Amino acid sequence: MPIIVSMDVTDVRFPTSRELNGSDAMNKDPDYSAAYLVLRTDAGGEGHGFAFTIGRGNDVQVAAIQALVPWVVGHPAPLDSASLTEFSQRLLSDSQLRWLGPEKGVMHMAIGAVVNAAWDHAAKLAHKPLWKFLADMTPEEVVGLVDFRYLTDALTPAEALDLLEAASAGKDSREQRLLTQGYPAYTTSPGWLGYSDDKLARLALAAAEEGFGQIKLKVGGSQTDDLRRMRLAREVCGPDMRIAVDANQRWGVEEAIDAIRALQEFDPWWVEEPTAPDDILGHAAIRRAVRPVRIATGEHAHNRLVFKQLLQAEAIDVVQIDACRVAGVNENVAILLLAAKFGVPVCPHAGGVGLCELVQHLAMFDFLAVSATVQDRVVEYVDHLHEHFVDPVTLRRGHYCAPTAWGFSAALKPASLAAYTFPTGTAWNDAQTVGALGGAAEDLHAFVVAEAVEQ
Amino acid sequence: MPIIVSMDVTDVRFPTSRELNGSDAMNKDPDYSAAYLVLRTDAGGEGHGFAFTIGRGNDVQVAAIQALVPWVVGHPAPLDSASLTEFSQRLLSDSQLRWLGPEKGVMHMAIGAVVNAAWDHAAKLAHKPLWKFLADMTPEEVVGLVDFRYLTDALTPAEALDLLEAASAGKDSREQRLLTQGYPAYTTSPGWLGYSDDKLARLALAAAEEGFGQIKLKVGGSQTDDLRRMRLAREVCGPDMRIAVDANQRWGVEEAIDAIRALQEFDPWWVEEPTAPDDILGHAAIRRAVRPVRIATGEHAHNRLVFKQLLQAEAIDVVQIDACRVAGVNENVAILLLAAKFGVPVCPHAGGVGLCELVQHLAMFDFLAVSATVQDRVVEYVDHLHEHFVDPVTLRRGHYCAPTAWGFSAALKPASLAAYTFPTGTAWNDAQTVGALGGAAEDLHAFVVAEAVEQ
Repeated sequence: MPIIVSMDVTDVRFPTSRELNGSDAMNKDPDYSAAYLVLRTDAGGEGHGFAFTIGRGNDVQVAAIQALVPWVVGHPAPLDSASLTEFSQRLLSDSQLRWLGPEKGVMHMAIGAVVNAAWDHAAKLAHKPLWKFLADMTPEEVVGLVDFRYLTDALTPAEALDLLEAASAGKDSREQRLLTQGYPAYTTSPGWLGYSDDKLARLALAAAEEGFGQIKLKVGGSQTDDLRRMRLAREVCGPDMRIAVDANQRWGVEEAIDAIRALQEFDPWWVEEPTAPDDILGHAAIRRAVRPVRIATGEHAHNRLVFKQLLQAEAIDVVQIDACRVAGVNENVAILLLAAKFGVPVCPHAGGVGLCELVQHLAMFDFLAVSATVQDRVVEYVDHLHEHFVDPVTLRRGHYCAPTAWGFSAALKPASLAAYTFPTGTAWNDAQTVGALGGAAEDLHAFVVAEAVEQ
Repeated sequence: MPIIVSMDVTDVRFPTSRELNGSDAMNKDPDYSAAYLVLRTDAGGEGHGFAFTIGRGNDVQVAAIQALVPWVVGHPAPLDSASLTEFSQRLLSDSQLRWLGPEKGVMHMAIGAVVNAAWDHAAKLAHKPLWKFLADMTPEEVVGLVDFRYLTDALTPAEALDLLEAASAGKDSREQRLLTQGYPAYTTSPGWLGYSDDKLARLALAAAEEGFGQIKLKVGGSQTDDLRRMRLAREVCGPDMRIAVDANQRWGVEEAIDAIRALQEFDPWWVEEPTAPDDILGHAAIRRAVRPVRIATGEHAHNRLVFKQLLQAEAIDVVQIDACRVAGVNENVAILLLAAKFGVPVCPHAGGVGLCELVQHLAMFDFLAVSATVQDRVVEYVDHLHEHFVDPVTLRRGHYCAPTAWGFSAALKPASLAAYTFPTGTAWNDAQTVGALGGAAEDLHAFVVAEAVEQ
């Protein structure tokens, strides 16, 4: 078994706030960033992984990953279901580090980055893309990936096994379909809040022409603007385009109910993050009040227990997993199984740095081995920063093409890594840029109620 | 207005794992630690604050506090309700840093440390201990401390104001009572899992003799041991001593129900952390099943929204605030108001490094200005590390004496700070110690299911 001999962590930041349209006084400009790591083994193998952040604080995320070095370096690289699970549990089980969560925030995302890197390495050694590496596991092996502690009131190992065995039928033909047709995507490109009506209309039409069956608009600014933009998008795209809206946690519970009722006449496909991501009961109250409008959340849901409760409380219609928010592949497999148990479709969050590259694998695994369907399933797509990846996503007619390169598609190109290392890379060499974007952030200093910035 | 000119952050660790009894293979030994900061103003003022951790990862916590420097240094020191709220909101509102939570884990605890330091400074300038500084604010000022976004479905500003105005009656006489009688405490000292039955019995008796009306035992090891220890404690202390038990998140939901039912014959006063701190619905299910046994949690509840939901779901009988887990005084005031609205007593978590020193102030404020009662209220007390504080807690007959020194009792003695700075302090000079406790942690390497270690 190869031994992990190093884990190098790099603070990578892309100065996306320089170029971003669509921001306003409430939505600060993000600098899409990655706390990026490379595992190396004594057999010459590499595993790549990262936590995604939006700029300041990426150094804190780097420090958190470095705190995991003693649990990684000097240990065997995990290569199969059992050892990958043991590896994941080892990182989650240091009681001193666990205090910093538990299982949430900076430390949990750090564990996710390292676990994903181990999976990247294992899939490469198996000569498979990650989706295939996962889908080729037996139902027993997949069940073995999951920590069922705290889950059995919602999903037992036996139930998970039943789900996976039932999904085994037709797996080969679904794989053929995946390879020829890809996995459905939707695009957020037309909908940024700051875009003019003209631009919104133009990009919405372009999305339809490119073959997307779903787009997403940002809402949560002024209600007048929200309604005008939604009406425009609906007029341009016609009744068949699915138009989701995303409030980015902007509303309280009652506010959300009022705002969603006002939007209802334009038939929103789903309403995403209507309120605080921690407010499980709030989501449930909103969903009950605005039925049949679909409620979606998950990109900020910090672990499997949040998803368990969102499902138990019948709070959501759409499970939005994120490849980098939770503790990596193992925990996302648990969430896919929970969603399947409750019959709620998974539509992953993506964008940012490399989130599309990673999460497509999990959606494809879900299709092949868990939910066994793409009905009402779509992976978010945002068209930026893919050029920095060795194995970037490819889209065709509104669908993600199944990656064929081995691994988890997580590796940044060496030239990009060098250029965007913060603050020493060539992209950051201009001292003024560093001051404005990564340093004291004087321009962000005014006291405002801030919003998380959607990817 | 004084301007904050520096924020110095120190990695302070106490090698408590060297001395700790009561640990086992499941409960790793903590090294009680603080990511400790000092604000200094151009007027010569100081504010002290810290995040509490249990060892490894304290450096990550330090990095998170340092990430807040641009929002602190160069800004006016907040001195009153309005400016303290603005200060708190400014730290919470940086959207890039918010991505690392939002409002949870390392980044949120960092904000809590800085906000608490600002309160320490403000109370000192007002020449009052923090409990008095808070209690002397008008109801309107107290309401102004709270961010009601996401709370209004459970508590509106008007309801909070009504609560506070109702509690104004009798405030002076309660203050007199507080100054003469102190605030009730309970002690966890007898109950560590690894103690022999003899030691448990001896310390339980001693607690009763010292005037404590409540003790707490650790459970969640073997059920046989739990039952034997609980029977012993009940025999030694008699029927009038309140004996709480603490499972430290050990159980799943069904497991917890079974375990609590087995303990029920010994009349546990409350059962603390029966399952994962994130599992709001799980706590509610457990409470429904074991009624009338009281369920307690909160030391790992990461923000006000978790408490809001625990209360809405009728999941708990005891609200265990922690001075350092959430975003400081402002957020804890919100939680105190929520608890008062729902009529659930607040019994703060303490122990660790300085948690007793801080949280006593919040409980005393609750008594004077919010709940207006000490009925069924107690603050946890653990007798260690107080000697390192400039203004340590003092107990008399099982009660916390109200601090009279100005500020938040947060300052470490300069000599202690120097000695326990990690890894350069004299307490850490022995290279072997550093290697074993703060470094690669080889002795903790075995793969086990870990537990958070209770303070």
